[in-house]
Amino acid sequence: MKPLILVTNDDGIGAPGIKALIDTARQFGDVLVVAPDSPQSGQGHAITLEHPLRLYKVELFEGIESYECSGTPVDCVKMAKHVLVKDRKIDLCVSGINHGSNSSINIIYSGTMSAAMEASIEKIPSIGFSLLNYRMDADFSAAQLYAGQIIESVLEKGLQDTLLLNVNIPNLPLESIKGTKVCRQAEGHWAEEFIPNVDPSGRPYYWLSGRFTCEDQGEDTDIWALEHGYVSIVPSMHDLTAHKAIPKLSHLNYNR
Amino acid sequence: MKPLILVTNDDGIGAPGIKALIDTARQFGDVLVVAPDSPQSGQGHAITLEHPLRLYKVELFEGIESYECSGTPVDCVKMAKHVLVKDRKIDLCVSGINHGSNSSINIIYSGTMSAAMEASIEKIPSIGFSLLNYRMDADFSAAQLYAGQIIESVLEKGLQDTLLLNVNIPNLPLESIKGTKVCRQAEGHWAEEFIPNVDPSGRPYYWLSGRFTCEDQGEDTDIWALEHGYVSIVPSMHDLTAHKAIPKLSHLNYNR
Repeated sequence: MKPLILVTNDDGIGAPGIKALIDTARQFGDVLVVAPDSPQSGQGHAITLEHPLRLYKVELFEGIESYECSGTPVDCVKMAKHVLVKDRKIDLCVSGINHGSNSSINIIYSGTMSAAMEASIEKIPSIGFSLLNYRMDADFSAAQLYAGQIIESVLEKGLQDTLLLNVNIPNLPLESIKGTKVCRQAEGHWAEEFIPNVDPSGRPYYWLSGRFTCEDQGEDTDIWALEHGYVSIVPSMHDLTAHKAIPKLSHLNYNR
Repeated sequence: MKPLILVTNDDGIGAPGIKALIDTARQFGDVLVVAPDSPQSGQGHAITLEHPLRLYKVELFEGIESYECSGTPVDCVKMAKHVLVKDRKIDLCVSGINHGSNSSINIIYSGTMSAAMEASIEKIPSIGFSLLNYRMDADFSAAQLYAGQIIESVLEKGLQDTLLLNVNIPNLPLESIKGTKVCRQAEGHWAEEFIPNVDPSGRPYYWLSGRFTCEDQGEDTDIWALEHGYVSIVPSMHDLTAHKAIPKLSHLNYNR
């Protein structure tokens, strides 16, 4: 039997990036699509507890079973696993191809990467793909080629079961991309700005804006790899424990 | 000058848990409150990009500068840092006291813990507190006592700058709590269930439900500590890189 590959994203089921990823994934297995019915960028690991969720079958991709979900990317993965695929193993979850970078700290805000992380919590090997181009008419061809190679390798060699891969592809023509680099998440953050304004009824509001900044100059980071023309691959995990810090915090440890 | 302590949560500014945390934090410094104007459980690391945000000063806590924000817990921390406190260092961020557990994998879904994590990204030492009791009339007195001890220690000894602490307090009377344990996040997950139903207009919907399950029997985990009457303290971080996996994935590494 062919492997079963779940495809999702955070830009919504109508985004060109998910179409590109479906076209790549279908070369390697049976594809099931469960994706948000609206853009969900910046939704991080949000789940929907306060509202009901809708799940509708759609005919968008020739020959591919596809559903749109009213929830977050993480909700999509949960619904795929617990509503739609009860009697078969999901062999791989791929998320994206995101319109814009998810390198460095962006992994934490990203619905694309949180969907991949949710799959990893369910012990499904998973990969998030992002292209460093926000435009809806971005050229996904180089990203598709690298995505295909990485999907093939993960299906063949597996992935330690609590891992996910955060793959970012530079916005370059294929011939200018130098290869791939397995690397670590650069320590960066957003220098935020909230743009103040006043609504038509005179009440003040703020709109989040900002600029990504990274002082981490390590040559072993995803930011370095991307700036030097490589596809970055960061193995990531949902165990957030700072294991090395445990022995250093013994002063917090006591018995009554 | 006294330390400046930012207090936030995910249950909303009206929840009893934040009142308990403010009453504890004010013993150790100047307190600024920025908290969501509505419950934000399960919002994870979501940020608000598609809508404007409201920020209103409120008079809820005698002598404490307090604001309610229309966004997520992470938005609250961003607004505190980038709108309200531009000319002073925030010395500590405390989030909670959450009504319900954030142990094990719950750290990832939790708005309470994501607020603490956002502070850590801004290099503000931070601590999330959660009491294992969902009820609005929960008794926070034991939790407050432990929160006070941990806040005092972190203010005195500091915390490595990319760390946050995930503190969970068992739902026990003070005299039954055995002490504190610095430990790791247990590997657990939610066995989800989506309850199907039909709305008044006949359209189907699903509502997320579920049961937390943990097969990780390690005695060095937060679940073990809580089940054995200890307050669990898990040092956590926003670097999600699986550093140990990098050398094992060299087959994904190549130059063209």
